Amino acid sequence: MPDALRLRPLTPEAFAPFGDVIAAAGQAEIINSGMTRKFADQARIDVECEGGRPAVHIYRSAPTALPLTVTMLERHPLGSQAFMPLQDRPWIVIVAPPTDIPDRGAICAFLAHGLQGVNLARGVWHHPQVSLEEAADYLVIDRAGPGENCDIHSIERPLIIRSLETERP
Amino acid sequence: MPDALRLRPLTPEAFAPFGDVIAAAGQAEIINSGMTRKFADQARIDVECEGGRPAVHIYRSAPTALPLTVTMLERHPLGSQAFMPLQDRPWIVIVAPPTDIPDRGAICAFLAHGLQGVNLARGVWHHPQVSLEEAADYLVIDRAGPGENCDIHSIERPLIIRSLETERP
Repeated sequence: MPDALRLRPLTPEAFAPFGDVIAAAGQAEIINSGMTRKFADQARIDVECEGGRPAVHIYRSAPTALPLTVTMLERHPLGSQAFMPLQDRPWIVIVAPPTDIPDRGAICAFLAHGLQGVNLARGVWHHPQVSLEEAADYLVIDRAGPGENCDIHSIERPLIIRSLETERP
Repeated sequence: MPDALRLRPLTPEAFAPFGDVIAAAGQAEIINSGMTRKFADQARIDVECEGGRPAVHIYRSAPTALPLTVTMLERHPLGSQAFMPLQDRPWIVIVAPPTDIPDRGAICAFLAHGLQGVNLARGVWHHPQVSLEEAADYLVIDRAGPGENCDIHSIERPLIIRSLETERP
Protein backbone atom coordinates (compact mmCIF):
# COMPACT_ATOMS: atom_id res chain seq x y z
CA MET A 1 0.00 0.00 0.00
CA PRO A 2 1.49 3.38 -1.00
CA ASP A 3 2.56 5.86 1.65
CA ALA A 4 0.18 8.74 2.26
CA LEU A 5 1.06 12.29 1.28
CA ARG A 6 -0.93 14.77 3.37
CA LEU A 7 -1.87 18.14 1.98
CA ARG A 8 -0.68 21.31 3.69
CA PRO A 9 -2.24 24.76 3.34
CA LEU A 10 -0.31 26.91 0.86
CA THR A 11 1.44 29.75 2.70
CA PRO A 12 4.46 31.85 1.63
CA GLU A 13 6.43 30.57 4.62
CA ALA A 14 5.78 26.88 3.95
CA PHE A 15 6.39 27.32 0.22
CA ALA A 16 9.58 29.40 0.56
CA PRO A 17 11.99 26.50 -0.16
CA PHE A 18 10.26 25.98 -3.51
CA GLY A 19 9.56 29.51 -4.74
CA ASP A 20 6.97 32.25 -4.39
CA VAL A 21 3.26 32.28 -3.59
CA ILE A 22 1.44 34.73 -5.88
CA ALA A 23 -1.51 36.26 -4.03
CA ALA A 24 -3.14 39.60 -3.23
CA ALA A 25 -1.82 39.63 0.32
CA GLY A 26 0.16 42.02 2.46
CA GLN A 27 0.86 45.67 1.77
CA ALA A 28 -0.68 47.16 -1.38
CA GLU A 29 0.20 50.33 -3.26
CA ILE A 30 -2.76 52.50 -4.29
CA ILE A 31 -2.64 53.44 -8.00
CA ASN A 32 -4.99 54.55 -10.80
CA SER A 33 -6.50 57.44 -8.81
CA GLY A 34 -7.48 55.13 -6.00
CA MET A 35 -9.24 52.55 -8.19
CA THR A 36 -6.55 49.86 -7.99
CA ARG A 37 -4.61 48.19 -5.22
CA LYS A 38 -1.30 46.91 -6.55
CA PHE A 39 0.27 43.91 -4.84
CA ALA A 40 3.69 44.32 -6.38
CA ASP A 41 6.52 42.02 -7.38
CA GLN A 42 4.99 38.67 -6.56
CA ALA A 43 7.41 36.37 -8.35
CA ARG A 44 11.13 36.13 -9.10
CA ILE A 45 11.02 35.38 -12.82
CA ASP A 46 14.32 33.63 -13.60
CA VAL A 47 14.47 32.84 -17.30
CA GLU A 48 17.62 34.46 -18.71
CA CYS A 49 19.86 31.42 -18.32
CA GLU A 50 21.48 30.32 -21.64
CA GLY A 51 19.71 32.92 -23.75
CA GLY A 52 16.20 32.35 -22.46
CA ARG A 53 13.28 34.79 -22.56
CA PRO A 54 9.99 35.00 -20.66
CA ALA A 55 7.08 33.15 -22.28
CA VAL A 56 3.39 33.23 -21.36
CA HIS A 57 1.05 30.30 -21.94
CA ILE A 58 -2.40 29.15 -20.93
CA TYR A 59 -2.58 25.59 -19.60
CA ARG A 60 -6.07 24.06 -19.70
CA SER A 61 -6.03 21.21 -17.26
CA ALA A 62 -8.43 18.25 -16.97
CA PRO A 63 -9.65 17.50 -13.44
CA THR A 64 -8.16 14.75 -11.28
CA ALA A 65 -10.25 12.79 -8.79
CA LEU A 66 -8.71 11.82 -5.48
CA PRO A 67 -7.06 9.55 -4.49
CA LEU A 68 -4.15 10.80 -6.61
CA THR A 69 -1.04 8.67 -6.92
CA VAL A 70 2.19 10.61 -7.38
CA THR A 71 4.33 8.51 -9.71
CA MET A 72 6.56 11.17 -11.29
CA LEU A 73 7.99 14.63 -10.88
CA GLU A 74 9.55 16.96 -13.42
CA ARG A 75 11.84 19.99 -13.23
CA HIS A 76 12.99 22.83 -15.45
CA PRO A 77 16.74 23.24 -14.91
CA LEU A 78 16.99 26.46 -16.94
CA GLY A 79 14.24 28.62 -15.50
CA SER A 80 11.41 29.38 -13.12
CA GLN A 81 7.80 28.50 -13.92
CA ALA A 82 4.78 30.35 -12.52
CA PHE A 83 1.19 29.08 -12.43
CA MET A 84 -1.79 31.33 -11.74
CA PRO A 85 -5.33 29.89 -11.78
CA LEU A 86 -7.82 31.83 -13.91
CA GLN A 87 -11.20 30.73 -12.57
CA ASP A 88 -10.85 30.96 -8.80
CA ARG A 89 -10.89 27.18 -8.25
CA PRO A 90 -8.77 25.38 -5.65
CA TRP A 91 -5.89 23.25 -6.89
CA ILE A 92 -2.97 21.15 -5.66
CA VAL A 93 0.75 21.94 -5.97
CA ILE A 94 3.17 19.04 -5.44
CA VAL A 95 6.87 19.87 -5.14
CA ALA A 96 10.25 18.64 -3.96
CA PRO A 97 13.51 20.56 -3.40
CA PRO A 98 15.92 21.08 -6.32
CA THR A 99 18.29 18.20 -5.51
CA ASP A 100 19.86 16.09 -8.30
CA ILE A 101 17.11 13.53 -8.08
CA PRO A 102 13.90 14.06 -6.10
CA ASP A 103 14.14 13.27 -2.39
CA ARG A 104 11.02 11.17 -1.89
CA GLY A 105 10.89 11.99 1.81
CA ALA A 106 10.92 15.72 1.06
CA ILE A 107 7.99 15.75 -1.36
CA CYS A 108 5.33 18.25 -0.22
CA ALA A 109 1.77 18.73 -1.44
CA PHE A 110 -0.06 22.03 -0.93
CA LEU A 111 -3.73 22.86 -1.25
CA ALA A 112 -4.01 26.28 -2.93
CA HIS A 113 -7.16 28.32 -3.05
CA GLY A 114 -8.24 29.69 -6.39
CA LEU A 115 -6.67 33.12 -5.98
CA GLN A 116 -3.27 31.69 -5.13
CA GLY A 117 -0.63 30.99 -7.71
CA VAL A 118 2.93 29.79 -7.32
CA ASN A 119 6.23 30.55 -8.98
CA LEU A 120 8.45 27.47 -8.92
CA ALA A 121 12.11 28.38 -8.55
CA ARG A 122 14.49 27.06 -11.19
CA GLY A 123 15.10 23.33 -10.78
CA VAL A 124 12.36 22.65 -8.22
CA TRP A 125 10.82 19.22 -8.82
CA HIS A 126 7.07 19.34 -9.31
CA HIS A 127 4.08 17.35 -10.42
CA PRO A 128 1.87 18.76 -13.18
CA GLN A 129 -0.69 21.16 -11.71
CA VAL A 130 -3.70 19.29 -10.26
CA SER A 131 -7.18 20.66 -10.92
CA LEU A 132 -10.02 19.36 -8.77
CA GLU A 133 -13.60 18.56 -9.79
CA GLU A 134 -13.61 20.80 -12.86
CA ALA A 135 -11.24 21.54 -15.72
CA ALA A 136 -9.35 24.76 -15.07
CA ASP A 137 -7.08 27.21 -16.85
CA TYR A 138 -3.78 28.57 -15.57
CA LEU A 139 -1.65 31.41 -16.81
CA VAL A 140 1.89 30.06 -16.98
CA ILE A 141 5.02 32.24 -17.11
CA ASP A 142 8.18 30.33 -17.87
CA ARG A 143 11.29 30.26 -20.05
CA ALA A 144 11.47 29.85 -23.79
CA GLY A 145 14.77 29.51 -25.60
CA PRO A 146 17.55 27.11 -26.49
CA GLY A 147 18.58 24.12 -24.39
CA GLU A 148 16.94 21.11 -22.77
CA ASN A 149 14.67 22.47 -20.04
CA CYS A 150 12.62 19.50 -18.80
CA ASP A 151 13.80 16.52 -16.76
CA ILE A 152 11.34 13.84 -15.68
CA HIS A 153 11.89 11.45 -12.79
CA SER A 154 9.79 8.43 -11.82
CA ILE A 155 9.00 7.98 -8.14
CA GLU A 156 9.80 4.34 -7.46
CA ARG A 157 7.50 3.90 -4.49
CA PRO A 158 4.55 6.17 -5.34
CA LEU A 159 2.89 8.38 -2.76
CA ILE A 160 -0.85 8.80 -2.51
CA ILE A 161 -3.00 11.86 -1.72
CA ARG A 162 -6.26 10.53 -0.35
CA SER A 163 -8.23 13.58 0.71
CA LEU A 164 -8.39 17.36 0.63
CA GLU A 165 -8.04 17.53 4.37
CA THR A 166 -4.94 19.55 5.27
CA GLU A 167 -2.41 19.17 8.02
CA ARG A 168 -2.06 22.08 10.38
CA PRO A 169 0.50 24.51 8.90
CA MET B 1 -21.95 66.60 -24.71
CA PRO B 2 -18.94 64.23 -24.96
CA ASP B 3 -18.47 62.11 -28.06
CA ALA B 4 -19.46 58.48 -27.71
CA LEU B 5 -16.88 55.70 -27.71
CA ARG B 6 -18.49 52.43 -28.78
CA LEU B 7 -17.17 49.11 -27.50
CA ARG B 8 -15.84 46.52 -29.92
CA PRO B 9 -15.51 42.78 -29.23
CA LEU B 10 -11.92 41.88 -28.31
CA THR B 11 -10.38 39.77 -31.09
CA PRO B 12 -6.69 39.18 -31.91
CA GLU B 13 -7.17 40.79 -35.32
CA ALA B 14 -8.80 43.97 -34.01
CA PHE B 15 -6.29 44.23 -31.17
CA ALA B 16 -3.17 43.56 -33.29
CA PRO B 17 -2.13 47.25 -33.55
CA PHE B 18 -1.98 47.41 -29.74
CA GLY B 19 -0.50 44.05 -28.73
CA ASP B 20 -1.58 40.48 -28.05
CA VAL B 21 -4.82 38.91 -26.88
CA ILE B 22 -4.10 36.21 -24.28
CA ALA B 23 -6.69 33.43 -24.56
CA ALA B 24 -7.02 29.65 -24.81
CA ALA B 25 -7.77 29.74 -28.52
CA GLY B 26 -6.36 28.12 -31.62
CA GLN B 27 -4.04 25.14 -31.78
CA ALA B 28 -3.04 23.53 -28.48
CA GLU B 29 -0.16 21.21 -27.66
CA ILE B 30 -1.06 18.18 -25.53
CA ILE B 31 1.25 17.77 -22.52
CA ASN B 32 1.30 16.16 -19.05
CA SER B 33 0.29 12.69 -20.34
CA GLY B 34 -2.80 14.08 -22.00
CA MET B 35 -4.07 15.97 -18.95
CA THR B 36 -3.18 19.48 -20.17
CA ARG B 37 -3.74 21.46 -23.34
CA LYS B 38 -1.02 24.09 -23.70
CA PHE B 39 -1.87 27.27 -25.62
CA ALA B 40 1.69 28.42 -26.07
CA ASP B 41 3.45 31.75 -26.36
CA GLN B 42 0.53 34.09 -25.93
CA ALA B 43 2.38 37.36 -25.34
CA ARG B 44 5.51 39.13 -26.53
CA ILE B 45 7.00 40.19 -23.19
CA ASP B 46 9.24 43.18 -23.98
CA VAL B 47 10.90 44.37 -20.80
CA GLU B 48 14.66 44.30 -21.34
CA CYS B 49 14.98 47.92 -22.47
CA GLU B 50 17.45 49.93 -20.30
CA GLY B 51 18.19 47.09 -17.89
CA GLY B 52 14.60 46.07 -17.19
CA ARG B 53 13.39 42.71 -15.90
CA PRO B 54 9.98 41.01 -15.90
CA ALA B 55 7.83 41.72 -12.85
CA VAL B 56 4.56 40.08 -11.79
CA HIS B 57 1.88 41.88 -9.80
CA ILE B 58 -1.73 41.45 -8.81
CA TYR B 59 -3.96 44.47 -9.46
CA ARG B 60 -7.20 44.49 -7.45
CA SER B 61 -9.52 46.83 -9.25
CA ALA B 62 -12.68 48.53 -7.96
CA PRO B 63 -15.69 48.34 -10.30
CA THR B 64 -16.71 51.19 -12.59
CA ALA B 65 -20.34 51.85 -13.46
CA LEU B 66 -21.21 52.99 -16.98
CA PRO B 67 -21.33 55.60 -18.39
CA LEU B 68 -17.54 55.86 -18.18
CA THR B 69 -15.84 59.08 -19.21
CA VAL B 70 -12.35 58.64 -20.65
CA THR B 71 -10.37 61.66 -19.49
CA MET B 72 -6.80 60.32 -19.54
CA LEU B 73 -4.54 57.67 -21.00
CA GLU B 74 -1.14 56.46 -19.88
CA ARG B 75 1.72 54.57 -21.52
CA HIS B 76 4.85 52.70 -20.52
CA PRO B 77 7.62 53.75 -22.91
CA LEU B 78 10.11 51.16 -21.64
CA GLY B 79 8.14 47.94 -21.75
CA SER B 80 5.07 45.84 -22.46
CA GLN B 81 2.34 45.31 -19.86
CA ALA B 82 0.06 42.27 -19.76
CA PHE B 83 -3.27 42.00 -17.89
CA MET B 84 -5.00 38.69 -17.26
CA PRO B 85 -8.29 38.59 -15.27
CA LEU B 86 -8.35 36.06 -12.43
CA GLN B 87 -12.07 35.58 -11.77
CA ASP B 88 -13.59 35.08 -15.21
CA ARG B 89 -15.39 38.44 -15.23
CA PRO B 90 -15.77 40.65 -18.32
CA TRP B 91 -13.78 43.87 -18.45
CA ILE B 92 -12.99 46.78 -20.73
CA VAL B 93 -9.66 47.59 -22.42
CA ILE B 94 -9.22 51.13 -23.76
CA VAL B 95 -6.19 51.81 -25.97
CA ALA B 96 -4.67 54.15 -28.55
CA PRO B 97 -1.68 53.63 -30.87
CA PRO B 98 1.86 54.45 -29.62
CA THR B 99 2.11 57.90 -31.17
CA ASP B 100 3.88 60.75 -29.33
CA ILE B 101 0.64 61.98 -27.86
CA PRO B 102 -2.62 60.02 -28.00
CA ASP B 103 -4.59 60.41 -31.22
CA ARG B 104 -8.08 61.03 -29.84
CA GLY B 105 -9.71 59.82 -33.05
CA ALA B 106 -7.84 56.50 -32.85
CA ILE B 107 -8.86 55.58 -29.29
CA CYS B 108 -10.49 52.12 -29.23
CA ALA B 109 -12.41 50.40 -26.46
CA PHE B 110 -12.77 46.62 -26.36
CA LEU B 111 -15.11 44.44 -24.33
CA ALA B 112 -13.13 41.42 -23.14
CA HIS B 113 -14.68 38.31 -21.68
CA GLY B 114 -13.30 37.00 -18.43
CA LEU B 115 -10.94 34.46 -19.96
CA GLN B 116 -9.30 37.01 -22.23
CA GLY B 117 -6.25 38.99 -21.26
CA VAL B 118 -4.19 41.45 -23.24
CA ASN B 119 -0.53 42.27 -23.55
CA LEU B 120 -0.07 45.95 -24.37
CA ALA B 121 2.93 46.52 -26.62
CA ARG B 122 5.55 48.97 -25.39
CA GLY B 123 4.34 52.57 -25.63
CA VAL B 124 0.69 51.81 -26.38
CA TRP B 125 -1.56 54.39 -24.72
CA HIS B 126 -4.16 52.84 -22.42
CA HIS B 127 -6.69 53.61 -19.75
CA PRO B 128 -6.44 51.75 -16.44
CA GLN B 129 -8.22 48.38 -16.68
CA VAL B 130 -11.99 48.73 -16.21
CA SER B 131 -13.79 46.16 -14.06
CA LEU B 132 -17.58 45.99 -14.33
CA GLU B 133 -20.14 45.39 -11.56
CA GLU B 134 -17.71 43.67 -9.18
CA ALA B 135 -14.17 44.28 -8.01
CA ALA B 136 -11.75 42.03 -9.87
CA ASP B 137 -8.16 40.89 -9.76
CA TYR B 138 -5.71 40.84 -12.66
CA LEU B 139 -2.33 39.23 -12.97
CA VAL B 140 -0.05 41.88 -14.46
CA ILE B 141 3.28 41.15 -16.15
CA ASP B 142 5.34 44.23 -16.87
CA ARG B 143 8.79 45.76 -16.55
CA ALA B 144 10.66 46.65 -13.38
CA GLY B 145 13.95 48.46 -13.47
CA PRO B 146 15.61 51.86 -13.82
CA GLY B 147 14.13 54.73 -15.80
CA GLU B 148 10.87 56.64 -16.00
CA ASN B 149 8.30 54.22 -17.36
CA CYS B 150 4.93 55.97 -17.06
CA ASP B 151 3.62 58.93 -19.08
CA ILE B 152 0.13 60.27 -18.45
CA HIS B 153 -1.84 62.34 -20.96
CA SER B 154 -5.15 64.13 -20.40
CA ILE B 155 -7.79 63.83 -23.10
CA GLU B 156 -8.96 67.40 -23.67
CA ARG B 157 -12.37 66.54 -25.01
CA PRO B 158 -13.30 63.40 -23.07
CA LEU B 159 -15.01 60.43 -24.70
CA ILE B 160 -17.85 58.52 -23.10
CA ILE B 161 -18.68 54.81 -23.05
CA ARG B 162 -22.40 54.57 -22.46
CA SER B 163 -23.23 50.87 -22.71
CA LEU B 164 -21.81 47.38 -23.00
CA GLU B 165 -23.36 46.95 -26.40
CA THR B 166 -20.61 46.25 -28.92
CA GLU B 167 -20.19 47.28 -32.54
CA ARG B 168 -19.94 44.50 -35.06
CA PRO B 169 -16.28 43.45 -35.34
